[in-house]
Amino acid sequence: MTVNGHSNGVNGAGPSTLSPLQVEPSSVEAARILPQALELVQNFIASGEQPDTYVAPWGSIPDFRKAVSLSLPDKTASDDALLDAIKLVFDNSVNPWTGRFLDKLYAAPTPVGIAADLVLSAVNANAHVMSASPVLSLAEERCVEGLCELFGFTEKKADGLTMPGGSSANTLAVQTALANLFPKFRTQGMLGVMQQLTEEKRAPRPLLFTSSQSHYSLDKAAISSGLGLDSVVKVDCDDAGRMDPKALDHALTAAKEQGTGTPFLINATSGTTVLGSFDPLPELSAVARKHNCWLHIDGSWGGPIVFSHRQTYSDLMKGSHLADSITINPHKLLNVPLQCSFLLVRDADTLSANSLDAAYLFHSKDRRENAAMKTMGCGRRGDALKFWLYWVRYGKNGFGAHVDAGLALAIELVEYIRSKPTEIELGPLADPLFLQICFRPLQPGRVDDSASWQLDAEEVKKRSAATQHVYQELKTRRMFAVDFAPLPNGIGDYIRLVVHPRTKMEDLKTLVDQVAEIGQSYWKQQA
Amino acid sequence: MTVNGHSNGVNGAGPSTLSPLQVEPSSVEAARILPQALELVQNFIASGEQPDTYVAPWGSIPDFRKAVSLSLPDKTASDDALLDAIKLVFDNSVNPWTGRFLDKLYAAPTPVGIAADLVLSAVNANAHVMSASPVLSLAEERCVEGLCELFGFTEKKADGLTMPGGSSANTLAVQTALANLFPKFRTQGMLGVMQQLTEEKRAPRPLLFTSSQSHYSLDKAAISSGLGLDSVVKVDCDDAGRMDPKALDHALTAAKEQGTGTPFLINATSGTTVLGSFDPLPELSAVARKHNCWLHIDGSWGGPIVFSHRQTYSDLMKGSHLADSITINPHKLLNVPLQCSFLLVRDADTLSANSLDAAYLFHSKDRRENAAMKTMGCGRRGDALKFWLYWVRYGKNGFGAHVDAGLALAIELVEYIRSKPTEIELGPLADPLFLQICFRPLQPGRVDDSASWQLDAEEVKKRSAATQHVYQELKTRRMFAVDFAPLPNGIGDYIRLVVHPRTKMEDLKTLVDQVAEIGQSYWKQQA
Repeated sequence: MTVNGHSNGVNGAGPSTLSPLQVEPSSVEAARILPQALELVQNFIASGEQPDTYVAPWGSIPDFRKAVSLSLPDKTASDDALLDAIKLVFDNSVNPWTGRFLDKLYAAPTPVGIAADLVLSAVNANAHVMSASPVLSLAEERCVEGLCELFGFTEKKADGLTMPGGSSANTLAVQTALANLFPKFRTQGMLGVMQQLTEEKRAPRPLLFTSSQSHYSLDKAAISSGLGLDSVVKVDCDDAGRMDPKALDHALTAAKEQGTGTPFLINATSGTTVLGSFDPLPELSAVARKHNCWLHIDGSWGGPIVFSHRQTYSDLMKGSHLADSITINPHKLLNVPLQCSFLLVRDADTLSANSLDAAYLFHSKDRRENAAMKTMGCGRRGDALKFWLYWVRYGKNGFGAHVDAGLALAIELVEYIRSKPTEIELGPLADPLFLQICFRPLQPGRVDDSASWQLDAEEVKKRSAATQHVYQELKTRRMFAVDFAPLPNGIGDYIRLVVHPRTKMEDLKTLVDQVAEIGQSYWKQQA
Repeated sequence: MTVNGHSNGVNGAGPSTLSPLQVEPSSVEAARILPQALELVQNFIASGEQPDTYVAPWGSIPDFRKAVSLSLPDKTASDDALLDAIKLVFDNSVNPWTGRFLDKLYAAPTPVGIAADLVLSAVNANAHVMSASPVLSLAEERCVEGLCELFGFTEKKADGLTMPGGSSANTLAVQTALANLFPKFRTQGMLGVMQQLTEEKRAPRPLLFTSSQSHYSLDKAAISSGLGLDSVVKVDCDDAGRMDPKALDHALTAAKEQGTGTPFLINATSGTTVLGSFDPLPELSAVARKHNCWLHIDGSWGGPIVFSHRQTYSDLMKGSHLADSITINPHKLLNVPLQCSFLLVRDADTLSANSLDAAYLFHSKDRRENAAMKTMGCGRRGDALKFWLYWVRYGKNGFGAHVDAGLALAIELVEYIRSKPTEIELGPLADPLFLQICFRPLQPGRVDDSASWQLDAEEVKKRSAATQHVYQELKTRRMFAVDFAPLPNGIGDYIRLVVHPRTKMEDLKTLVDQVAEIGQSYWKQQA
């Protein structure tokens, strides 16, 4: 069997020591394949820019499953078969370049991001030790420094690293807090923690406090680090989705007085998943100090607001310097390709609690060269490079203008929705408004009564059903991808869209018009 | 300020709502930037294929730090500045395309891998729910099916998912075992586990058994899941680095009899980090069954041996169907770009223990559509796509021929080293030989006495010093990247090289010659 005339050695046609992964020089294979793959990439981007391109290729996953199957062949395949497989991927993928993918907290990257992924793939260096990845490790170091400075981690030597996602970063923060606050955690685990707390006449269960609107990764972090879900205390939020500092203080005091557990960590969310709300950092840090708790900020989504040139917004991160650790995901709001997430710590020494020697791997006494010592993992992709190349291209000011462009769109869209009070009901908004907007179609004859939100269960059910109908119809039409979510305080399901800074205003208005239109005909059918 | 004549809106030159990430259509920017980035990629690959290209650009990290600094600018930059930054990355990176990077368990990818990374970056879909990434999720499903079949997970409905590395996969396996064996782990954490064990009159500490040669991620998994290092029992290995099943059974029995803890998990390593040894799976699974333990196989490195056409080698995975979970990293031996790692489970239901509902995210009743429910994370890059495209290109038979090509090289290299018994001391080898070879220079006048390895401490120190000298000199020469590691049983440091299936035999021989040559002149200086 031959591939493009080269013996691949599989069936004994060539020397037995030749790997079929290397039947010709890689440079030759690369020169032939990669320009063709790149052309498909460019077609995908260009197609996304056409106004009539579907954002999602399939209206339903069962339909997709019926139409597409993927083979796992026994034999080597030609270039053409490979390129056909790549075409199949593009033909059946959600196209974020349409700008109409408003479903999740990420969107299309920029061509700079694709270039960065190309570089990472060709260099293929593991960021676990600097000797294997000198410049990728240095890029990580610099990005960590730059972010730490922005968040005010300047008093002590700060530190940080990339993690494969916000959940991983939040989990590492919880583990780092446990290891630092309870010296026996590392060797004796939670049994040692319990023993220590019992000796100190404190309640044996460590407690983690986070808002009812925070991301479910905090729950998962509690499961995975041996705390269990019972160790997570959910604190009430105000109407705008911010954690109430008084409720937090009350919950901490009550836990101590009633002996249900020993508070050790407070998680503040900067940019909640559904509403985009920011917990009040100065107030939360005061509570954390009072109760000797580790303060973590989950800024996976909203952290980049620190770049904003609008003071009302950059002030949302005021007090971040009082936190012990911060998660920020440039792969969300800053459009770096998935994944690119950082965990930052105010005090570099706290990350050392995770270090474990591996004589075969760590040969340097300079701990900056042994990044894997900072994490519970080992090998890592050099994701920081993508963020560094963005920083080089767009600059700190460019990140600010980018975030502000998104805010301007969101503000304008809310005005547009408000101009249709007989067709659309606006959901609760973050204060100040961030990038998520929740809304649903309104029954004819009613006027948006969202200011009161005193709905009986029957009415909530009816409006949620209307939301579901609109969501399904939008899915079938395939021109917009949006999500829906049940909102707090039992007010039912709303369409949730995420405004991305590069979304087109006219698309947003068209979407709102379609929600109104689909809603109107739905209600007519129900009448 | 303008980029290529386009207003970027940062300084008020354009409309305030324009993001500097979108000053022109992405297709236009992509058409301009990506071919240039690709050209740099091709240059990097072609340069790697030149015999005089350094594998590592710097002989020492301090020298690198003196010469290279990375800026974090405030302002937007031109295409040229971006491309200069990319050039800087290539100029200062280890070049795996030389084939002389024998330092770690990964090597250069193939152009297919770069194409796959290009696709992933352009699609930029999150594999957490299938609606966001239909074809990437399907590729994951298919690869999991294909791997499960190979490892014999066919009796029940098996399952699995990609994880960002072998450490993460091993950690998820430990957490999944805890959640399945101790129902209270999920809600009450280790305190609930302890309570359950105490009620059952068993020792309260859960114990994890793994060999003394296993990867340190098992220790990290124990820390991060709240078990603590004290819960890890290291079991002795035989001279070839395999866990001794009798020693395992003895350790388990002793723990129970002495009440030091309750065994719950046995980790078998298929391909150890230093020697490349495979633990005996049938024997270990018998012990696991006898003691009611979860059996996990860490096949991060050696798992792909399952593809081998040589029965002696494919037999090393015989018994894998008796395990509860398996880790395999196609980014190591199969040269898929970093990261690409799978965790497989024999019984799909066991992964459900990790599921946690998120009403805003999971909308389907078909659990195959909600992959994030299987893991402690949430968002994931669609890494399985890379492996699927490799499978399409090379086929199952191609993977086998690839692995076998590496084995043939390793066997030939050992013969070559054995032909120099007065210059090179061969370290202990895996049985059967795998892809790592440990060796060091021999003092003139001595003959390789490695068969006995009865060295006094002084002699061990002397030989380790010679190894260190050779390692440093090779680093300075920059033509080969190898690692060194202290070997078990106190025999000191050896050069450890990893034979990759695409390594050239003449390069391996040149390296051995250089080790001999550097060693000879070192011993002369010492004399």
